[in-house]
Amino acid sequence: MALLNESARGVFVISVTPFRDNGALDLEGVPRLVEFYLARGATGLTILGIMGEAPKLAADESIAFVRAVTRAVAGRVPVVVGVSSPGFAAMRALAGEAMEAGAAGVMVASTPGLRSDDSIYTYFEQVAETLGSIPFVLQDYPLTTGVQIPVGVLKRIIAALPTCVMLKHEDWPGLNKITALRTGEGRRVSILVGNGALFLPEELRRGADGAMTGFAYPEMLSGVVAAHQAGDDQAAADLFDAYLPLARYEQQQGIGLAARKYVLAQRGAIASPAQRRPGRKLTAEDIADIAFLIARQEKRLAAIGKPATK
Amino acid sequence: MALLNESARGVFVISVTPFRDNGALDLEGVPRLVEFYLARGATGLTILGIMGEAPKLAADESIAFVRAVTRAVAGRVPVVVGVSSPGFAAMRALAGEAMEAGAAGVMVASTPGLRSDDSIYTYFEQVAETLGSIPFVLQDYPLTTGVQIPVGVLKRIIAALPTCVMLKHEDWPGLNKITALRTGEGRRVSILVGNGALFLPEELRRGADGAMTGFAYPEMLSGVVAAHQAGDDQAAADLFDAYLPLARYEQQQGIGLAARKYVLAQRGAIASPAQRRPGRKLTAEDIADIAFLIARQEKRLAAIGKPATK
Amino acid sequence: MALLNESARGVFVISVTPFRDNGALDLEGVPRLVEFYLARGATGLTILGIMGEAPKLAADESIAFVRAVTRAVAGRVPVVVGVSSPGFAAMRALAGEAMEAGAAGVMVASTPGLRSDDSIYTYFEQVAETLGSIPFVLQDYPLTTGVQIPVGVLKRIIAALPTCVMLKHEDWPGLNKITALRTGEGRRVSILVGNGALFLPEELRRGADGAMTGFAYPEMLSGVVAAHQAGDDQAAADLFDAYLPLARYEQQQGIGLAARKYVLAQRGAIASPAQRRPGRKLTAEDIADIAFLIARQEKRLAAIGKPATK
Amino acid sequence: MALLNESARGVFVISVTPFRDNGALDLEGVPRLVEFYLARGATGLTILGIMGEAPKLAADESIAFVRAVTRAVAGRVPVVVGVSSPGFAAMRALAGEAMEAGAAGVMVASTPGLRSDDSIYTYFEQVAETLGSIPFVLQDYPLTTGVQIPVGVLKRIIAALPTCVMLKHEDWPGLNKITALRTGEGRRVSILVGNGALFLPEELRRGADGAMTGFAYPEMLSGVVAAHQAGDDQAAADLFDAYLPLARYEQQQGIGLAARKYVLAQRGAIASPAQRRPGRKLTAEDIADIAFLIARQEKRLAAIGKPATK
Repeated sequence: MALLNESARGVFVISVTPFRDNGALDLEGVPRLVEFYLARGATGLTILGIMGEAPKLAADESIAFVRAVTRAVAGRVPVVVGVSSPGFAAMRALAGEAMEAGAAGVMVASTPGLRSDDSIYTYFEQVAETLGSIPFVLQDYPLTTGVQIPVGVLKRIIAALPTCVMLKHEDWPGLNKITALRTGEGRRVSILVGNGALFLPEELRRGADGAMTGFAYPEMLSGVVAAHQAGDDQAAADLFDAYLPLARYEQQQGIGLAARKYVLAQRGAIASPAQRRPGRKLTAEDIADIAFLIARQEKRLAAIGKPATK
Repeated sequence: MALLNESARGVFVISVTPFRDNGALDLEGVPRLVEFYLARGATGLTILGIMGEAPKLAADESIAFVRAVTRAVAGRVPVVVGVSSPGFAAMRALAGEAMEAGAAGVMVASTPGLRSDDSIYTYFEQVAETLGSIPFVLQDYPLTTGVQIPVGVLKRIIAALPTCVMLKHEDWPGLNKITALRTGEGRRVSILVGNGALFLPEELRRGADGAMTGFAYPEMLSGVVAAHQAGDDQAAADLFDAYLPLARYEQQQGIGLAARKYVLAQRGAIASPAQRRPGRKLTAEDIADIAFLIARQEKRLAAIGKPATK
Repeated sequence: MALLNESARGVFVISVTPFRDNGALDLEGVPRLVEFYLARGATGLTILGIMGEAPKLAADESIAFVRAVTRAVAGRVPVVVGVSSPGFAAMRALAGEAMEAGAAGVMVASTPGLRSDDSIYTYFEQVAETLGSIPFVLQDYPLTTGVQIPVGVLKRIIAALPTCVMLKHEDWPGLNKITALRTGEGRRVSILVGNGALFLPEELRRGADGAMTGFAYPEMLSGVVAAHQAGDDQAAADLFDAYLPLARYEQQQGIGLAARKYVLAQRGAIASPAQRRPGRKLTAEDIADIAFLIARQEKRLAAIGKPATK
Repeated sequence: MALLNESARGVFVISVTPFRDNGALDLEGVPRLVEFYLARGATGLTILGIMGEAPKLAADESIAFVRAVTRAVAGRVPVVVGVSSPGFAAMRALAGEAMEAGAAGVMVASTPGLRSDDSIYTYFEQVAETLGSIPFVLQDYPLTTGVQIPVGVLKRIIAALPTCVMLKHEDWPGLNKITALRTGEGRRVSILVGNGALFLPEELRRGADGAMTGFAYPEMLSGVVAAHQAGDDQAAADLFDAYLPLARYEQQQGIGLAARKYVLAQRGAIASPAQRRPGRKLTAEDIADIAFLIARQEKRLAAIGKPATK
């Protein structure tokens, strides 16, 4: 497998973790899910991310899931594996297993509690040393980690640590952070954006290379990126706006993931919308909301000549 | 002034605080701002809220601002004044001054750090005792306070404390909380929703009575509520969707308020978009984003026959 | 191995994790460390706790450490293994391996973020279901978890979940919590106290059964418990006070663990004071502080006829 | 009144706020309290600190309390007034009133939420600009503010802002921070330590100039500082150790302040131990603990020839 590098762009979909109704990991369902994402324009896949249900997997399930995904992908796109961990020994072990299984790189968020420029820099210096030659994505996600990384510290990390090849940007608000990162000298790393892509058109205009996030309609993510890269920001915004009401609904904490899995199951991407405990269940009212939103979404898509793929 | 009660509905706009370019409080500008809000359908006004720039006012400025607003409103709609405070003595003093100045009621959020059902209940019991006969809005805002109030505790408060007449709902995600509050027996209090109204159509369908939040186009808030109350949820959603891209942009922390004041100044509601320090300033890129969003918004509004009032 | 039950008392020492100077896990050193603790009155050992260096171990190192400890203990005292985890699958897997390796029970702290009585109760209900017949210690540690468990919720858990056999009490301040737990009806579980034993004499007088914490002089912990159980609270306090200045010094976050390992290495309990990265190193001034404190401690111990064992 | 400057040393006692049994502010009791503190060696007084009951005062009560204290002190020692505030306008107003009432300087903690070196520096730059010529104490208190100020940032603030004349050090653990601050070039500011003085002997040896904290026996604070300044660190430690068990008990959050006020009332410093709501009340068991600790404390003091003043 080719290693991840600074030229990565497009859409690295954050994959859901498929479970059966009884809570068992659905490894048999992985190929179908992978095909679903690739058919809708994913240029990469990211698994075991900081959010979602990765922490609900036992260690052996995690690595089995990584293997099932890389096997199904079969080298068509790079696979990134989240390896954030409270300790470096566990990070090194998981990263090693992931790369051996065929991952293209790993992703690491700041450990919680870092509160000064130097402590943040030192942490990622130790991450890079722990990972050796493995390329890594720096996940900048203050909402979850509580760590705010100043632009100057990001630039210092990028300058000093060549294996840091990508920034998963989900600082919020973060538009001017992208602008600042794209200003001045220094190695250009890939910037893919998270946060449910709720600011994707703006982030692309500021210099992001694409998205690394989840959504039940990944064709929106790839379509917006494609339109922007083709120079048509109005078309990008048209497509984005058509999906925004549902994307917003999916960004609700907890219930949002339940909504996403519900829609993915409806679309045939996964066999069951089940979440492992602890997980939120949709109510009848939630399901009515989603139906309301999808019906309107389909009308808007038809109006701009972009009917959703089933 | 009539006191606030459980029948309140519609849109209580959270007013911005107008400053001059030099940072001075712009009391002369208050009447114009009030007229702007009332002309766009506000059925109430809320000032000195937990967010925004109220904490940047000195104590005498706060009360001067309350007086300027109530004078300009002149009893046409109720004015609610935020009086959350680390101590009950300060809360009592500010609430007394606000009511004397003509407010219809006050608003109190949970003090940070409450972590058990009983401690939350006891806190609001002491709030009610502190306020005496003054009606109050309970602001349920976990994102800022860190306090999550279970539905059972809200029902217990409502049952026991008759001066609690309204819930400002900004738990997130909170749709099922509204559904649960509207289920079962017990006194029916008013529920107005916050969080930038990003879930207003859904919240109205769950039983909310309107919104208490800010937005540079308050006519969206009042229009959505009116359409819903007229039984036309498709029209409500049409209007909401037209404004959603900008509403989303305004929800960015820090920079969102700068965007709101910029648009309000453009629309003539305030003389200056200035924020008091510490405040974020818009960059050229931010301003370009806003222009892009407003141009598209106007087209969408024209398409549904609802051009924005200037 | 006998299973942990409600009658546990005395001192369950939270063991340090021994590393070599190069950061490798020192499994060969485990027997010496175990003998050190047992010779100083430990009636149990606890490993892989929420604090300390357990998160710095890779998964296979964790289980190797558990096996090394249970092998060295050889059934003389019960061994408790911390299995707190973000997910139930990982918790179940680690608990199963630990029990198979000869542990007497496991310990679980609240997952962070729980904010209501019901959510806390439900979490431990799911923990008990996950663990099946394995007895567990509920670690009540708000300083780290951010979760404050009301007495009523603890009593509800104890009443409903028979496999919850012990409370590791480290709420702070928590003296009246112990008093409340020891008041009224209901199954009596074991209560051992944490927080570096800084309130051990008071906690014993309130009804605690002993301590589950770490200190470079575990003979203080066992001596204080023994004196209290013999009915001599003045002797218990004499011994406690003699060690208090150093115990306080060890409670400094980060540097405190470095101090503890330094003293344990001086005493021959471990071969190296090394911490795995990220870890704090003692400065010359820190070492001078410790020498100052130990010299005075030895004088105080001599004065009460209790010279420290080497 | 002379202004506070970098040469301040000794013990600035953090005064309790005296209330009557009914919760009214006891201004009449202020002179007695002031004499109590001065007679036991206070070289300064600090009021309206970030902890304690200052937030329970209404604005007019705060300023009345400041005036009562400065009147009673009558220039014998400097009075420092806490003016931390969410906004600069309120900070400026309170600081102005405090100085007019005769304060020698003010104290400001970091506003919560600052997460980068530059944002911390900029905050204090704006504080200094807000305060003009008023000398201020920078309170470094991460446990409460959540803001960790690196040594480099403190040095940058001290170098650039001449009105920053004192550091109230309550980072924890912070011994090496004091050492680092006392190393190298740059203006020497006063460093007084907080955190209940639980590390006072060590902090003095690292270069602190004294303490700014509260304790029911302020003669311990002044005695320890005096012995250290006289070069006798063993005597300093003897005195400290004699009081440490009670000092530790007073450091319990919430209940600790109740204990302090209980002892101060017993000693005649205040008329009532009452706290304003919300406040903790001592139980019979708490009072028994305190009696136990004081009886033993008196024996230890007698043994070193230092009986407590009544």
